[in-house]
Amino acid sequence: MSGFFGSISTDDCVADVFYGTDYHSHLGTKRAGLAFLSKQKGFQRSIHSLEDGYFRNKFENDIKNFSGNSGIGVISDTEAQPILVSSHLGRFAVATVSKIVNIAELEAYFLDKHHTFSETSQGAVNATELVAMLIAEGTDFLSGIENVYNKVKGSCSMLVLTDQGLLAARDKLGRTPIIIGKKENGFGAAFETCAFSNLGYEIEKYVGPGEVVRITADGYEQLRKPNAKMQVCSFLWVYYGYPPSFYEGINVDETRYRCGAALAKNNPVEADFVAGIPDSGIGHAMGYSHATGIPLKRPYSKYTPTWPRSFMPQNQNMRDLVAKMKLIPNKSVISGKRGIFLDDSIVRGTQLKDNVVDLHDAGIKEVNMRIACPPLTYPCEFLNFSSSRSSLALATHRAVRDLENREGVDMKEYSDCNSEKYAAMVDKIREELGLTTLTFQNLDDLVEAIGLPKEKLCTHCWDGSSYFE
Amino acid sequence: MSGFFGSISTDDCVADVFYGTDYHSHLGTKRAGLAFLSKQKGFQRSIHSLEDGYFRNKFENDIKNFSGNSGIGVISDTEAQPILVSSHLGRFAVATVSKIVNIAELEAYFLDKHHTFSETSQGAVNATELVAMLIAEGTDFLSGIENVYNKVKGSCSMLVLTDQGLLAARDKLGRTPIIIGKKENGFGAAFETCAFSNLGYEIEKYVGPGEVVRITADGYEQLRKPNAKMQVCSFLWVYYGYPPSFYEGINVDETRYRCGAALAKNNPVEADFVAGIPDSGIGHAMGYSHATGIPLKRPYSKYTPTWPRSFMPQNQNMRDLVAKMKLIPNKSVISGKRGIFLDDSIVRGTQLKDNVVDLHDAGIKEVNMRIACPPLTYPCEFLNFSSSRSSLALATHRAVRDLENREGVDMKEYSDCNSEKYAAMVDKIREELGLTTLTFQNLDDLVEAIGLPKEKLCTHCWDGSSYFE
Amino acid sequence: MSGFFGSISTDDCVADVFYGTDYHSHLGTKRAGLAFLSKQKGFQRSIHSLEDGYFRNKFENDIKNFSGNSGIGVISDTEAQPILVSSHLGRFAVATVSKIVNIAELEAYFLDKHHTFSETSQGAVNATELVAMLIAEGTDFLSGIENVYNKVKGSCSMLVLTDQGLLAARDKLGRTPIIIGKKENGFGAAFETCAFSNLGYEIEKYVGPGEVVRITADGYEQLRKPNAKMQVCSFLWVYYGYPPSFYEGINVDETRYRCGAALAKNNPVEADFVAGIPDSGIGHAMGYSHATGIPLKRPYSKYTPTWPRSFMPQNQNMRDLVAKMKLIPNKSVISGKRGIFLDDSIVRGTQLKDNVVDLHDAGIKEVNMRIACPPLTYPCEFLNFSSSRSSLALATHRAVRDLENREGVDMKEYSDCNSEKYAAMVDKIREELGLTTLTFQNLDDLVEAIGLPKEKLCTHCWDGSSYFE
Amino acid sequence: MSGFFGSISTDDCVADVFYGTDYHSHLGTKRAGLAFLSKQKGFQRSIHSLEDGYFRNKFENDIKNFSGNSGIGVISDTEAQPILVSSHLGRFAVATVSKIVNIAELEAYFLDKHHTFSETSQGAVNATELVAMLIAEGTDFLSGIENVYNKVKGSCSMLVLTDQGLLAARDKLGRTPIIIGKKENGFGAAFETCAFSNLGYEIEKYVGPGEVVRITADGYEQLRKPNAKMQVCSFLWVYYGYPPSFYEGINVDETRYRCGAALAKNNPVEADFVAGIPDSGIGHAMGYSHATGIPLKRPYSKYTPTWPRSFMPQNQNMRDLVAKMKLIPNKSVISGKRGIFLDDSIVRGTQLKDNVVDLHDAGIKEVNMRIACPPLTYPCEFLNFSSSRSSLALATHRAVRDLENREGVDMKEYSDCNSEKYAAMVDKIREELGLTTLTFQNLDDLVEAIGLPKEKLCTHCWDGSSYFE
Repeated sequence: MSGFFGSISTDDCVADVFYGTDYHSHLGTKRAGLAFLSKQKGFQRSIHSLEDGYFRNKFENDIKNFSGNSGIGVISDTEAQPILVSSHLGRFAVATVSKIVNIAELEAYFLDKHHTFSETSQGAVNATELVAMLIAEGTDFLSGIENVYNKVKGSCSMLVLTDQGLLAARDKLGRTPIIIGKKENGFGAAFETCAFSNLGYEIEKYVGPGEVVRITADGYEQLRKPNAKMQVCSFLWVYYGYPPSFYEGINVDETRYRCGAALAKNNPVEADFVAGIPDSGIGHAMGYSHATGIPLKRPYSKYTPTWPRSFMPQNQNMRDLVAKMKLIPNKSVISGKRGIFLDDSIVRGTQLKDNVVDLHDAGIKEVNMRIACPPLTYPCEFLNFSSSRSSLALATHRAVRDLENREGVDMKEYSDCNSEKYAAMVDKIREELGLTTLTFQNLDDLVEAIGLPKEKLCTHCWDGSSYFE
Repeated sequence: MSGFFGSISTDDCVADVFYGTDYHSHLGTKRAGLAFLSKQKGFQRSIHSLEDGYFRNKFENDIKNFSGNSGIGVISDTEAQPILVSSHLGRFAVATVSKIVNIAELEAYFLDKHHTFSETSQGAVNATELVAMLIAEGTDFLSGIENVYNKVKGSCSMLVLTDQGLLAARDKLGRTPIIIGKKENGFGAAFETCAFSNLGYEIEKYVGPGEVVRITADGYEQLRKPNAKMQVCSFLWVYYGYPPSFYEGINVDETRYRCGAALAKNNPVEADFVAGIPDSGIGHAMGYSHATGIPLKRPYSKYTPTWPRSFMPQNQNMRDLVAKMKLIPNKSVISGKRGIFLDDSIVRGTQLKDNVVDLHDAGIKEVNMRIACPPLTYPCEFLNFSSSRSSLALATHRAVRDLENREGVDMKEYSDCNSEKYAAMVDKIREELGLTTLTFQNLDDLVEAIGLPKEKLCTHCWDGSSYFE
Repeated sequence: MSGFFGSISTDDCVADVFYGTDYHSHLGTKRAGLAFLSKQKGFQRSIHSLEDGYFRNKFENDIKNFSGNSGIGVISDTEAQPILVSSHLGRFAVATVSKIVNIAELEAYFLDKHHTFSETSQGAVNATELVAMLIAEGTDFLSGIENVYNKVKGSCSMLVLTDQGLLAARDKLGRTPIIIGKKENGFGAAFETCAFSNLGYEIEKYVGPGEVVRITADGYEQLRKPNAKMQVCSFLWVYYGYPPSFYEGINVDETRYRCGAALAKNNPVEADFVAGIPDSGIGHAMGYSHATGIPLKRPYSKYTPTWPRSFMPQNQNMRDLVAKMKLIPNKSVISGKRGIFLDDSIVRGTQLKDNVVDLHDAGIKEVNMRIACPPLTYPCEFLNFSSSRSSLALATHRAVRDLENREGVDMKEYSDCNSEKYAAMVDKIREELGLTTLTFQNLDDLVEAIGLPKEKLCTHCWDGSSYFE
Repeated sequence: MSGFFGSISTDDCVADVFYGTDYHSHLGTKRAGLAFLSKQKGFQRSIHSLEDGYFRNKFENDIKNFSGNSGIGVISDTEAQPILVSSHLGRFAVATVSKIVNIAELEAYFLDKHHTFSETSQGAVNATELVAMLIAEGTDFLSGIENVYNKVKGSCSMLVLTDQGLLAARDKLGRTPIIIGKKENGFGAAFETCAFSNLGYEIEKYVGPGEVVRITADGYEQLRKPNAKMQVCSFLWVYYGYPPSFYEGINVDETRYRCGAALAKNNPVEADFVAGIPDSGIGHAMGYSHATGIPLKRPYSKYTPTWPRSFMPQNQNMRDLVAKMKLIPNKSVISGKRGIFLDDSIVRGTQLKDNVVDLHDAGIKEVNMRIACPPLTYPCEFLNFSSSRSSLALATHRAVRDLENREGVDMKEYSDCNSEKYAAMVDKIREELGLTTLTFQNLDDLVEAIGLPKEKLCTHCWDGSSYFE
């Protein structure tokens, strides 16, 4: 995943874009970039790697020299962004949250026309540069964005910084969000509304699927109406979103409390405490504890004073060490006790398995696991979530392979929570992970906890439901 | 406050001391230092400021060049440490957790003898250098440490790294802790036992007041028996300690759950949610929520991905900005709701007052505040907690001044939770902070929540109880 | 000016390209870049600003991660380089030493075709990116390079790193040089042959004007024959080149000794010492001293231990301070003495004027100035030397304006060293700079000191001689 | 060697001390330090290693926060300095240029008195801390300095920064210099007068042997008269000093020109060029070239743009690489030619031997070596020059051992330039180094070139002449 933030104002907007982008740091760890436009200085841009430092450290020197009444910033989990180009439409900068499935086909299309790709430091085409080139094929920005919608398979939301204003163009199916905020002297556009509160923005408008809005310091106008169909990613509420954020008007953390409460209805057990896996399961655990009256405790404390994320990426061994080091077990809570543990989802299960071993080392009596969403049975095709892994990386596929002794099994029946196959798969996963009990959320309960009609949500990961391009 | 960690082993102990010291980072933000002793390299030491970076960043280059079978590290909230000196006892390094009330008198004592103080970069005598000079007055290390106990007024716990082993010498009244841990190839000594778990140490022995222990890789011997009297600081459980730590065998977080539950008995109110002020009130809030059945929620999310502590110290404005920026309000939880908020204590109340304003800006209906300890009516004389502030900095003294319209009032009666004066003072504080209701813990409930006999605890901050040197 | 270095070898060539590029650091202070190609890692590239540090510091971390059997590096006094693109010819990297006079026209040409320019961080088109796009218009690399020769007005020498070898393509009129070197396991290509000696290369071939050579680890082949006409820049010997370098087989420092000796023939004066303006006049002064028998002395010592160039660029005030601070006057040499001072040229004369004031402050009796080339009367159109300045920035133009009391005077007669106008202009400059005597080199003497036929040299700066595109 | 600079002024002197100390950078590569005294801030100090960076880089951040009307700075080739202590005399800072031969004896003296040494990071007593402790033994600063003169064997010049002024105390035999400079608002004190010129100081007074001067912003007073006897180090002129500096009123570079001219009288040879070994032999070569009429050339160019000294120290291999890389041979000067090379001295001869190999690789025909001082036959006991090496490290001792086939030979006769043994030793060194001819300066010629009476100069290295403590 990636995330972006833009602002346009009658005042200088550098600080807003700096902090607003920083509030998207939980969405990516690879790169970040900022671009500004001012009358005096024109376009200014900087991009840094986040693999060896924080967004704020990396950019704090840059912003001293930046100025602008409009700007965009992006936390990118993949390519270098924003892309800044000169074109027949004038100069413009673009940031995307995207997954372009047909990227090789689009690359060949441009090479045949003797175009050159410049952002090649990663050895692959830069998806956002490709988007910029697709926009430059248009006769104006709107037709260029329409060109992106028509040619890109996958998903693509965009912020485009131009001398005619800030353009916000949400993915045609609304898989990823853009929300417009309003403050005294201008407007903002964000992926995460949690970026708005401390910067003085109020939520003004949830941009719709395929909708294109041109924002200026004085107001905004709809350049393209939203499409009727929506397939917004359910994982935004379950996992990606920061607790205070809202998507489609629905709060993330409240959704998690409802998820926890819903889970409490299924397969209840007696226990000494409830706990969330830090940090992804905390909200879910709060809902579960309240629903059952079992006390919420902290079997692990995260050593926050000195284990920032930036120390993690160097190599897998170091990452594992840090993951272990920053969680300190409290034996007084764990030893000889029965615990109920909540988490958002199980992808591979590797880390969970290690955690269970640690809990047993600390003397736990029971590990009852509760998962806020159904088993992940279909890899994601539209975002980067769980997609780059082979399907056997999924705990569900490994369990089914072991049960049926073959690969490539149809997951349809295994996705039905009322089937025997489902029960067998869950029990296999439970056994594999060394759990006392394991219960997943039912899909209907999850949809109800979110509160949108099921047809507006993408639930592909759990039911392989068909989708439209 | 400061904190230290030492280790001695048949193996190299550099990594243990590095990580073990790092786990004391919540105790100080000014300086840190490491010292090691190896047969090949002799003594090695480095000290860095923490005001512009993390312990780990600052020392990660140093430790590549360090080696040693014994070592000590310290997070110091005041002076540069450890002090490394050459003396007639040989070379040794010393780290302290101390507050030396009679430091000027001891400085004059040494100047009269034509000694020179070298650690003068702060414009004042370095307390740990003074301790090293007092040790060097002895005929051996034990008589030198006894000399420290006799001459220092205040408190002083020490780790002394020598070629005869690692000496752990706890303050004569045990105001600050030292705990010995044991692992396969050696021993550790820590202020915080939370440092032991992930490094493979098990708690072996709680060093007693005034006890001196000589530790080697093979074992340890008591050089000096513990004193009978103890005055261990109650705030270790209420505020300073990390949740998984134990002092005198009593866990920090469980004490906080008990504090929260005890508070729930007094002055109950109806509310929509319970919340802890991050991070100091979380444990207390968990206990309160469970005792009342009122759901625990997160009205504020801490933006942990990128707001590490190191961004705070430059100046007060910046600190205030960061304090504000890193807590993101969740309007879905707050707006139109009645909340009960838990925190460990009220010192000046300044930040709390700002928080209450923010909560009202976010639309809260009621702010019911619950404090895990009694009102702070007497400044601390033995540690650095609340001591450098004038007494009028304390919210209690300001409230009493306003009630009686004069300064320097005797606080005895105001410290009695059953008196009318106490009630008037608390109501004045409540009014000053803009709270709907305000309740402090009763001292007896706090002592019971900790679980030690009252005479073993220092409760001076709350009742001005006399103490013995 | 800029400079580049490339290498291709059966061994890893990263160290060679790193050091070889570094040996071009005297040619630029803005940016530098390296690109490598390895079978395992593909293309790798990094670009850094040199404005706040050294080439070596900036790249030493990068090269630890780089590997390759071929690579190019560039010290660029203008744009970010090397440019790395993906194209229908495959991926390639290109570094240039160029001045593209018709850059705006070429930009418009590409924008009309809906191409985008990516390297826009400077607010202007990146000349090397433009060259890459011109190459990509070809059906193969050779036709692409021919396209550059045909479309670019100004000058352009190139190194192109491809998976088919390293291409060296010298400017069509040979204004800037490329020399091929040979070592045991491969070949190098350099602007400055001083880069070869310590890396083990012997000079193998001086690439001719417009010649294109494809180099592999095993040998090289001529892809395009050299053009008959040459206009190599005379300033390479007078100013730009490092003393041990050779161009067209002629050594730089020996040329300077000859320049100094030639100057000694004109307008001889008695003096106590001869000195070169550090560092540009040292070689010339050595020749002058030997020819006259007047002792060479050091009236100024350059404080080399700590005044590296990188400390200069932040702002003009700081630059002036450093320029002053790093030269320490020796009063024992200066005070009461008659000196003869040599320098390569006078452009604006500003710094020289300050130096003369300083010499008088130190008590000098006579300042006799001798300049190794004729007066600069025509701005350069082909390189960046003296070109960005308005013509009035030139000391000659200011003198002529003062003499004739008007601007825009035809400089033809003023460029003839036998004319009265020339004599008047030189005397005006002498007066303006506060010199005792001032003598410039005659153009014929300079051409003879270099040793090439005059028609092979560009002497435009001094005689405005016509040239052919 | 080390070097220092102090200033005291009615204005802020931070910039003066910063730049003045920097101008001593050629005297040391290990550490540097600055100390300032201001009424508002009291004493401020910082010390940095120079092994991985420049003085200016290391201190430029510090000086932003420093202020003071008096201050001292030191470039130290050994211990951390300045030492800042609190004592019964008040706080003071001290910087030294010293070699304390009886340091172990003085350490034991203090340990017996139960004093502690704090500056122990190098595993040995810090000589300047020892000096500070000796000063603190006095009843006032003057008696403390007298105590240093009485107890220290070796040499010791000091700058002492106190709240009563800046004290300049030169070594009792004047082995190392202190010169006082005067500018408009105050005074300076330096080791090297080259530090004065660009900072606006004029030389005011050469402090005499053992003389102590107290300097204030308004003037200075002699606290102790100079001793009659002087033994100033001859190497100050031959090697250590920067060319524009003066000691005892005699300029360094002019001395070198005279050295070169004097050498030209002995053993003349025909040659194509004269050259100085960069940078130590340049001044000598200029004198030689002028005396003989043989042209001065540059067979090697130092690649100054990017090879600052700071890149050298990491390890010997790297140092050797840099030494090689930064000198670029000019084959046009060298190949097939007969050269005369000047250098200041031959210590071990190792590097010279390598240079001679390189010259032959570049095709030289003859290498005629001329050395500006006599053969070094007695190790230095008073400074750090050549002292830490075993005597066999000296080229002279190795040659004599080879001639006599035994060690420990009396060097008296070998030090007499008219003896046969001397001739045999020089020829052996010549042979060992692969030289065509080798001639050393005669001691009488050197003394005459310097211009002081021989009894005022320390010539111990060349004649083992006795000295007085």
